[in-house]
Amino acid sequence: MRYLAIVAALVAWTAAPAAAQTPPRSMAEILEQSPASDWRTVPPENTLYMELPAGRVIIELAPEYAPNHAANIRALIAARWFDGAAIVRSQDNYVVQWGRDEGDPAPLGEAQRTLAGEYDRARRGVAVTRLRDPDSYAREVGFANGFPVAGQNGRTWLAHCYGMVGAGRGDAPDSGNGGELYVVIGQAPRHLDRNVTVVGRVLQGMELLSVMPRGTGPLGFYETPQERTPIRSLRLASEVPERARVPLEALRTDSATFRELIDSRRTRREAWFLQPTGRINVCNVPLPIRVRG
Amino acid sequence: MRYLAIVAALVAWTAAPAAAQTPPRSMAEILEQSPASDWRTVPPENTLYMELPAGRVIIELAPEYAPNHAANIRALIAARWFDGAAIVRSQDNYVVQWGRDEGDPAPLGEAQRTLAGEYDRARRGVAVTRLRDPDSYAREVGFANGFPVAGQNGRTWLAHCYGMVGAGRGDAPDSGNGGELYVVIGQAPRHLDRNVTVVGRVLQGMELLSVMPRGTGPLGFYETPQERTPIRSLRLASEVPERARVPLEALRTDSATFRELIDSRRTRREAWFLQPTGRINVCNVPLPIRVRG
Repeated sequence: MRYLAIVAALVAWTAAPAAAQTPPRSMAEILEQSPASDWRTVPPENTLYMELPAGRVIIELAPEYAPNHAANIRALIAARWFDGAAIVRSQDNYVVQWGRDEGDPAPLGEAQRTLAGEYDRARRGVAVTRLRDPDSYAREVGFANGFPVAGQNGRTWLAHCYGMVGAGRGDAPDSGNGGELYVVIGQAPRHLDRNVTVVGRVLQGMELLSVMPRGTGPLGFYETPQERTPIRSLRLASEVPERARVPLEALRTDSATFRELIDSRRTRREAWFLQPTGRINVCNVPLPIRVRG
Repeated sequence: MRYLAIVAALVAWTAAPAAAQTPPRSMAEILEQSPASDWRTVPPENTLYMELPAGRVIIELAPEYAPNHAANIRALIAARWFDGAAIVRSQDNYVVQWGRDEGDPAPLGEAQRTLAGEYDRARRGVAVTRLRDPDSYAREVGFANGFPVAGQNGRTWLAHCYGMVGAGRGDAPDSGNGGELYVVIGQAPRHLDRNVTVVGRVLQGMELLSVMPRGTGPLGFYETPQERTPIRSLRLASEVPERARVPLEALRTDSATFRELIDSRRTRREAWFLQPTGRINVCNVPLPIRVRG
């Protein structure tokens, strides 16, 4: 089958003729041979398990960038706000969104009804692994604490890449609270950067969200309740029994392994490639996750 | 419902306080008020109708960039190569791909079995509406003949944006022929630019392809025949009876309307936006399509 030949060609990470003593390693080799210290345990108190009929979606919160939203989402989870909520929107090449109707509210518990936006933060104190490649939207792009970031003028913010999760809001800057969340399912809508509070990213189960049938209402909202996918529950990993947790580790984005990975993706040395490119966009760099073995 | 407030906020294209005499127009207004001459009829001989169980996908070929592939795809269609083929691959944040097994071949008719790649072409003779914004991958980006393009050093090529369609190949540069096609369903994989022949883009029905359940085999290939979605038929619009055609028009990318649209998307003036951004990526510019009324 020709397409299996293509599979084989793409799966094979054939090193290019070596110019240096050490031939460049494939991404798989880079990850397999990485020291344990280049991986971090995803903190259970920052890990969300969203249970859908098709399976579990795992999300990591980014409290370094959105501390108040992270705290409020934890409070909403404690109040079971999301249990019985639903996927309400699926807009092609944009976002899938979930939340509750005002007509079907849930107790807020200790959570705030509205929060000031956390659109960016001071660059000072954040260790950014910078990308040298130009970006269409910001003067600086890179990675901090496992997330793609952008910045300029002494500020830094989370970048709206594929799989990033944000908190919906109305026109007022302080009209969101983390009780409605969306995930990017298409080309990075970077024009949303600094316009919405980004709260984290999907680590696992993205393929359950990205295939949600697109809604036919304005902005991809579903027009009937029957089209919605219910959320069975949303929990913090830290409140789930140890045996029910997925022990995820994320590659540290300040590690030598990650820097080598960026280079291996910037300059593609697999036999299939005719043009190694030599440049990369911040939203095209993989952020590896593994289950602790 | 809060999310309906968000809908309303996003749907409303409220003009910002006018600095100039003429307030900026919304994208909807720009398109509604555009002269008929700023639209082009999509040529039926470059229009593919791919009939899936869920509906029709419409693709426009780009013979200015891939003339031999366009001709070969027309020959494959004449031979009914794609009728009874299937969606064989769905890789999250990457591509959905369709074609035939070698174990289930179809006659090639007048089509070539392999073709030299058409990875780029001379910049000379191509009218490019340039974007002034920086790009991570190329020195020049913009639009030509309705397609997103990139270029440098006197060459120009189609850019791998969301919805662009390419021709799969094996390791050898001349191992493809247009008989296996893929469409981009995630963050633009621009590292594929100049590595694969891009043959066109999806104009309508993208939401039928992007939600294909992700395959669990390597590279998102389906592991069993049962997971595949059959292609009932693939036809040129020009061979379909007039009454069965969809009379699509595309906004000319060399028009004043399109240049105003780029500006309206680069600087977001809707009331919802706090940061108008003022920059845009080539893959974030909409390429409007309408049905001739």
